[in-house]
Formats: sequence, structure tokens, C-alpha cells
Amino acid sequence: MLNFQYVNPVRIIFGEAQYQEISKNIPAGSKILITYGGGSIKKNGVYDNVMQALNGFSVMEFGGIEANPHYETLMKAVEIVRANKIDYILAVGGGSVIDGTKFICAAALYEGDPWDFFAKRVPVQKAIPFGTVLTIPATGSEMNSGAVITKEETKEKRAFGSPLLYPKFSILDPTTTKSLPVSQRANGVADAFVHVIEQYLTFSVNAPLQDRFAESIFQTLIEIGEKYVKNLDDIETAGNLIWCATMGLNGLIGCGVPQDWATHMIGHEITALYGIDHGQTLSVILPGVMNVMREEKRAKIVQYAERVWNICEGSDDQKIDAAIEKTEAFFRSLGIKTRLSEYNVPANAADEILNALKEHKMIPIGERGIITEEKAREIIKSRM
Amino acid sequence: MLNFQYVNPVRIIFGEAQYQEISKNIPAGSKILITYGGGSIKKNGVYDNVMQALNGFSVMEFGGIEANPHYETLMKAVEIVRANKIDYILAVGGGSVIDGTKFICAAALYEGDPWDFFAKRVPVQKAIPFGTVLTIPATGSEMNSGAVITKEETKEKRAFGSPLLYPKFSILDPTTTKSLPVSQRANGVADAFVHVIEQYLTFSVNAPLQDRFAESIFQTLIEIGEKYVKNLDDIETAGNLIWCATMGLNGLIGCGVPQDWATHMIGHEITALYGIDHGQTLSVILPGVMNVMREEKRAKIVQYAERVWNICEGSDDQKIDAAIEKTEAFFRSLGIKTRLSEYNVPANAADEILNALKEHKMIPIGERGIITEEKAREIIKSRM
Repeated sequence: MLNFQYVNPVRIIFGEAQYQEISKNIPAGSKILITYGGGSIKKNGVYDNVMQALNGFSVMEFGGIEANPHYETLMKAVEIVRANKIDYILAVGGGSVIDGTKFICAAALYEGDPWDFFAKRVPVQKAIPFGTVLTIPATGSEMNSGAVITKEETKEKRAFGSPLLYPKFSILDPTTTKSLPVSQRANGVADAFVHVIEQYLTFSVNAPLQDRFAESIFQTLIEIGEKYVKNLDDIETAGNLIWCATMGLNGLIGCGVPQDWATHMIGHEITALYGIDHGQTLSVILPGVMNVMREEKRAKIVQYAERVWNICEGSDDQKIDAAIEKTEAFFRSLGIKTRLSEYNVPANAADEILNALKEHKMIPIGERGIITEEKAREIIKSRM
Repeated sequence: MLNFQYVNPVRIIFGEAQYQEISKNIPAGSKILITYGGGSIKKNGVYDNVMQALNGFSVMEFGGIEANPHYETLMKAVEIVRANKIDYILAVGGGSVIDGTKFICAAALYEGDPWDFFAKRVPVQKAIPFGTVLTIPATGSEMNSGAVITKEETKEKRAFGSPLLYPKFSILDPTTTKSLPVSQRANGVADAFVHVIEQYLTFSVNAPLQDRFAESIFQTLIEIGEKYVKNLDDIETAGNLIWCATMGLNGLIGCGVPQDWATHMIGHEITALYGIDHGQTLSVILPGVMNVMREEKRAKIVQYAERVWNICEGSDDQKIDAAIEKTEAFFRSLGIKTRLSEYNVPANAADEILNALKEHKMIPIGERGIITEEKAREIIKSRM
């Protein structure tokens, strides 16, 4: 395996009704801002539970953080943080709220234009501490230090991260998913699945434990994904789904192995340009990456076919074809459309997506930069 | 799955020749004590590399920490720490050196008799910070906060732990294993394997990802264990073995699942009474626990048989018998004897072991206290 460093200081608090742990993990006397999204937490009881848990603290709130959180929206929260000398933030929501909160925490203490974190790759030097109450299993943001932010003005969706942006703690309470709509559940499963693929489907570096950990997450998502999407009251399954999503992107399975992330990078541009959900764009693009890059990823796709899907008959190419088919069928079983044409993208989508990738210096992509402009075009066109 | 909290702040630094990372992770101006065992690090170059990496620091050393580190030995190091105002310790060795170092770090700042940590279960309130350079993959101590110490005077082998006793960093350099003797390699593999079994072979709580992570470690240890033990120059395999051992006991696979630890508790008494290596005692006792507790652990042993050993034919009891046989054969393939009689224990060993367990309030043991005195006797006798 490759050399690596790994450290992850996030305290995970898993279980039902763990709200009393929040106040134990926030310094006494903190001036807290709670951040959230469209307001579903006010309907499903999570907001009330959080506010009760914060009894005795000075608390302000900032709602309305949208999916693919907007720089423009988040900068309003930054103003509130600065004006009110907020010194702790509690993100209550899914990956968008948590990612947005990471940006707020860093931007509030940055003296220049916070878009510098993306445009100039300025490293984060200081950040307000924060915790999370996760309500949507998907992104893994609750146990990592990265975030993806969208600038609405220029339709740019960009990533950043810093060791200063790990949550201090994350409450993973499976009952918070009860009111989660089917589409958000499905997108979450797809997102988690593709996070794992990005850290697995590359080339072998003789890292058998990392391979098997990744396969463990695939197998579990395949086993419980559809059940989680369809049985809204199945809290046990939701708990297992949460743990898969958290483990899918907390750095562990990526230790000492090459990583791809091409599906995500192409997907980000599609979301930014056409407003298609993140999990949907991944489900569209992944089969194309697997198919077009089959030579470069051959050994790993065959291993994936055999171990994850139990496809043991036929030639390697037949196994690869079958594994791609099974993967796409898995996304469709969750109710996700897997073709760009099903989302009514314009006919010149491939050109637009490629231009955006080039503008963001994302070509070539993939492990070892194996996805050239030509390959990326082939991938996108094959998914129309 | 069960509710849980998980946090693990250890920085893992994996790879060859990472010694330059040591000084980056120790505060400037620290007065350092390096701790080690029998002196093999002076022959294999590790000591020289460490001393070179600590150039510029004030460094003292304490060698001679034995396997199953003795309270009596460690108290001598405590005196050195106190007398010289040591404020950072660097453990260079295997689990015994690291465990012993954890005790030194806590004892040096404790005002009473440090055996209170064991005899009175006094919680650790302060500890000197420490890092590790791991040289023997086995115990997982390099990424956890627990330790096992032996009081030679009374032949007691006891465990303690504290969140203050996580290493700040651990260097995992597979080349350090080059000079490791075959028997220590074999013991390490057995130790790691049984750590995982203790967190897996209990009763099901619907935690499919934890199950699969555990099975991943079993499968990898089975795949590479013998190769690691026999091919002393195979650094890649050593690296994979290290990662299995570290992941086997860093808390992760135990999140949200019941745990057993009976094999370890019985094994500790055998080591304390008869001086048999830790990994050997585990290899002796585990098959007995599996056999005698087959009713209580039935579903999980069958799952283990099917998924880990690919035993899919026959009745459940036949699968269990075959899985026990495969497990014992695995230990023997590493060169470990798996019967007490092969180690020349006295005829009344069962009584002596049981008396020690009772004296240390270790009966009943196992998940849900299912291993009564009678069952423990049956387990030990079945392994003569």
C-alpha cells in the first residue's frame, strides 16, 4: 500500500435520543449559532430537541441553507457570526448544511474575500469550532474536514477542506431520518456508494484490507439500500445506512490507496449547470466511467464484479459488463434515473460540461490523470 | 446496532522511513524519555534512526521493558520521569513497550500508589503525552488507549485504560519488522485475530457493516498471515499485517456491538501463572470458547463459518465444527501449539486458572456474563 497519514478527531455519538450529549460537548458560555436548511427540522421535532438541549446557552439561528449550499447565502451567515461574536456553531441538517457550516466557520475568521479558499486555494488558518446533528445520511461530511460550496453567480461548484474543519462532535440519531423523503434517501445511498467507489475502483497497490473494507460498505449498501429508501419507519436500517455513509467518507478506507473522484468532478459540473441532484449525477456518470475506463481499471472492476456482485462466470469483459449493469440497476432500484436524457439536459451538454471542467482546471482527472478531455467526452456522451 | 460513542485522536503515520515526522509531532523543547524492550532496536537500526530524528531534543532512555510488562520494572521508569521532569515519552517497540509506556505516563503524575489504577479502578486524571514507533504488529496498542500490566510479585495481569492514554502519534514502518523472530510474528497474528473475534463472535444486534469489517480483517489475516510469518523480507505483506492488527483493536469494529473478551481474560491468567506467550494462550483457549459456547454464539459462528471460511455445506453444527477446526488449523499453520499439554502446564491447571479468575472478579465472563465458572472449567479442561 502507499504511505499515508491518518487522523480523525471527530467524536461520533450514535443512537436515539442522545441530545443531552450536545451540551456536554460545547464549552460553557459559548455564543452559539445553529444552522439549518429548509426548515424540515421545525416540523419533525429535531429543532425542538436541539433547542431544549441548548437551554442555558446564548443561541441564535440561521436557516435557509439550500442543497449545494450557496456562497451567497452562507456569506449572510458569516455577517451574523461576525456581528454577534458567535464562537460555536451547531449544524443541524444533512451534508449541505454541514458543508455550508464548515465554510461559515472558516470564512468568519478570514480577512480577505472567502472565495479565495476556492479560487486561490488559500489555506484555512483559523476556524470557529462546530458540532453537527446529522439528519441525512449521504455525504460523510459529519466525520470529515471537507466541503463543497456553489457560487450561484457564476454557477461554480467547488471543494475545499482543512484539518481545522473537522466537527468536534456529530450526533447520529437514526430517528431524525423518519421524515426524510424517498428521493433524498435514494440520493444519499447513491452518494455513499460512489464515495466508496472513488476510493476503490482505481489500480491495485496491494492493500487487501482497504479493498475489503470498501467491499463491506458496498455489500451492506446493496443489502439494505432499497429497504432504507422504501421503509421509512425502519429505524434500525436507517442506523446501519448512516454508519455506511459516515464510514464511506471519513478518510479511513482511502488510507494508502489511490483515489479517482472523476465521477464526482463531472457530477459537480452537471449539478452546477443543470441543477440535477448530486446523487443523481453520480448515478448517471459512474457507469460511463466504469465502461470507458475499463482497461485502466480492469483488475479492480473484475474484483468488484466477483466479490461484490458474485459474478464469477464468463470472461473478464463479460464480468465487467455485468458489474456495470448491476451497478446501474442498483441505482434504478432506488428510483434514480441514470441517463442524462431522462433529466432533459440540452443537446450540447457534453460541450458545456467539458468547458466547465476545463475552466476549473479539472482536465485531466481520475487517478494518475488517466481521464483526458477525449475520455471525459466519451464518458458524458455515453450517458446521454 | 447498540448506541455508542467513538473518537480516536491518534495520528497514524504509515510507511517506510517516516522518522522525520517524529520531531514534527513532539513539542519543541520537550524533555523526552524513549522507552524500549530487550534492546533489539539497537541491533536493527531503529534506535539509531529514532535518536537521529530526535536530534536537538533533550533525550533520556529506559530500556528493558519485558513482555507482559512488569509493574516493578515500570516503576523504575516512573522514578526517572519524576526525577528528570520528563514531559514527553516516545515508546519504541511492540505492545508491551507501548502498554508499559501508557502506565508510566499515568503513574508519573499520580500521587498515590499507581497500582490503584488496577486494584481500586482509580481513573487516570493526568498523563504525560507520548508517541510510539511500532515494531511488532499485534496488540493494536499503538492506536488505542488501553494497556495490560503484570505485577510480578503477585502474578497478576491486569488491564486499565483512559482517554488520556491515546498516543499522540504512531509511526507504523513495516521495515521495523525485518528482524522480528518467527514466533513473535505468529503470536502477533494470533493476537490480532482473536481481538477481532472478541468483538464479533457474540450475538447479532443487526450491525451488518461492523460484521463485515471484522470479517474483512479475518479474511486478510488468513490470506497473508502465514506469508508474513515465513517471509521475513516481505515488507509489503508486513505493512498489510500491521494495518490489520491496528484496525483490529482501535475501537472501530467494536462500535455498537457486544463484546466477549473471555478468551483474553482466561489467557491473561494462563500467561501470569505459567509464562506462556499471550498469542499462544489465545490460540489455545479460543477453540474451547467456540465449542463450549456454541449454543449462545450459534448464529454468529455459523455466519463466521460461511463468510470467512466458505463452509456452506452441512448442518449448523457441522459448520461450527468445521469452523473451529479451520481456526485451530490456522493457528497451527503459523507454528503455534494449541493445547495446554503442549506447554507442560501442571495437571491442576484448570483449578489454578479458575481460582485466579475468581480472585480477579472475572467470573462470570463473556458477553452478557454467559460464561459461568462451570463453563469456564469446561473450556479450560477441553483444551488440555
